[in-house]
Amino acid sequence: MSEPLVIGIAGGTGSGKTTITGAIASQVGEHIALLSQDAYYRSYTHLSLEERSRINFDHPDTLDNDLLIKHIRALKRNVPVQTPIYDFHQHLRLERTVNVQPAPILIVEGILIFEYEPLRSEMDIRIFVDTASDIRILRRIERDINERGRSLESVMQQYRETVRPMHIEFVEPTKRFADIIIPEGGFNKIGVDMIVARIRDIMQDHQQVS
Amino acid sequence: MSEPLVIGIAGGTGSGKTTITGAIASQVGEHIALLSQDAYYRSYTHLSLEERSRINFDHPDTLDNDLLIKHIRALKRNVPVQTPIYDFHQHLRLERTVNVQPAPILIVEGILIFEYEPLRSEMDIRIFVDTASDIRILRRIERDINERGRSLESVMQQYRETVRPMHIEFVEPTKRFADIIIPEGGFNKIGVDMIVARIRDIMQDHQQVS
Repeated sequence: MSEPLVIGIAGGTGSGKTTITGAIASQVGEHIALLSQDAYYRSYTHLSLEERSRINFDHPDTLDNDLLIKHIRALKRNVPVQTPIYDFHQHLRLERTVNVQPAPILIVEGILIFEYEPLRSEMDIRIFVDTASDIRILRRIERDINERGRSLESVMQQYRETVRPMHIEFVEPTKRFADIIIPEGGFNKIGVDMIVARIRDIMQDHQQVS
Repeated sequence: MSEPLVIGIAGGTGSGKTTITGAIASQVGEHIALLSQDAYYRSYTHLSLEERSRINFDHPDTLDNDLLIKHIRALKRNVPVQTPIYDFHQHLRLERTVNVQPAPILIVEGILIFEYEPLRSEMDIRIFVDTASDIRILRRIERDINERGRSLESVMQQYRETVRPMHIEFVEPTKRFADIIIPEGGFNKIGVDMIVARIRDIMQDHQQVS
């Protein structure tokens, strides 16, 4: 079995990363393993809940990227991994884990996956989903209110205080590390079709080699 | 014979549009027709050379986009066209023309090809080559001095007076009409491979249909 193709999909909050990832996965079929950087927040077990809730989780330092790299490298060697589950209410990593099996294609998705050089350099294809900031905040408001039971006020406050400044400082500059940028805001079929076509090409080459 | 696939490649001066176009063409092979928006500047024959040399040719109004659209539509019907040749010293369209034969793939390339809606909507795939402005001006200086015999001073003056403001006003905003954005500054092989893979896919579908 040859080494999996690693595809990184980055982009700000509400950019449509998950939609793009899902569209690629559904078109390419069963050959995909997925790692979300979201699951790799550090576990601040030595702090109280109150202290933890004051941490700026939009800053890259809160991510355990070295563990994520370890898991990518294991999957590249076709070894299964136990990926963490993060509890966003308690700001803790759960004891339980999720088993991820190796696959010919590994998608790594997350807001800050291009920010840390050793992580970025694990990826063969780097895609940045670029969506206007007004569209992104509207999506985030919808998601956080409907799926996470948060108040509009708290979403807006967090956005202004940490999400937006951290986006400008750490997420936006990583666009220049992308191989292609997918403008979004609505569903970009033409962009997805291009990525899928290339994945199928590479898969075919892999199969011919092995 | 089915209708050609029309691919638009836009991007500012010095962005690497020509390099990307050449890379696509060389990988896809003989199936490509190319139209450059550069050849479609209006012919201001009613003005003197001195008057013509005062025209801001970085403004979209100086482009004869309706003629370009006419040619795209002819090639879509698989009818050959006679494309203009523009003399940038005299600021005039020459009497001579270039014969362009229809092909399964038509690439339209130019700085402002996404700016005019009727032109933009002729394209099936829209690609924007996005390169940092410092890299772009350095390339433009090299090209204008080496290939066009211009002085550094005149290149810099034109850049500051018209190229840059027109880029910000008319070119940069058209990025949002792109299906994918190719970051450049060096050669983006991964981006080109993705475009080529998708073109081959579509070509295959065309051949199966026809």
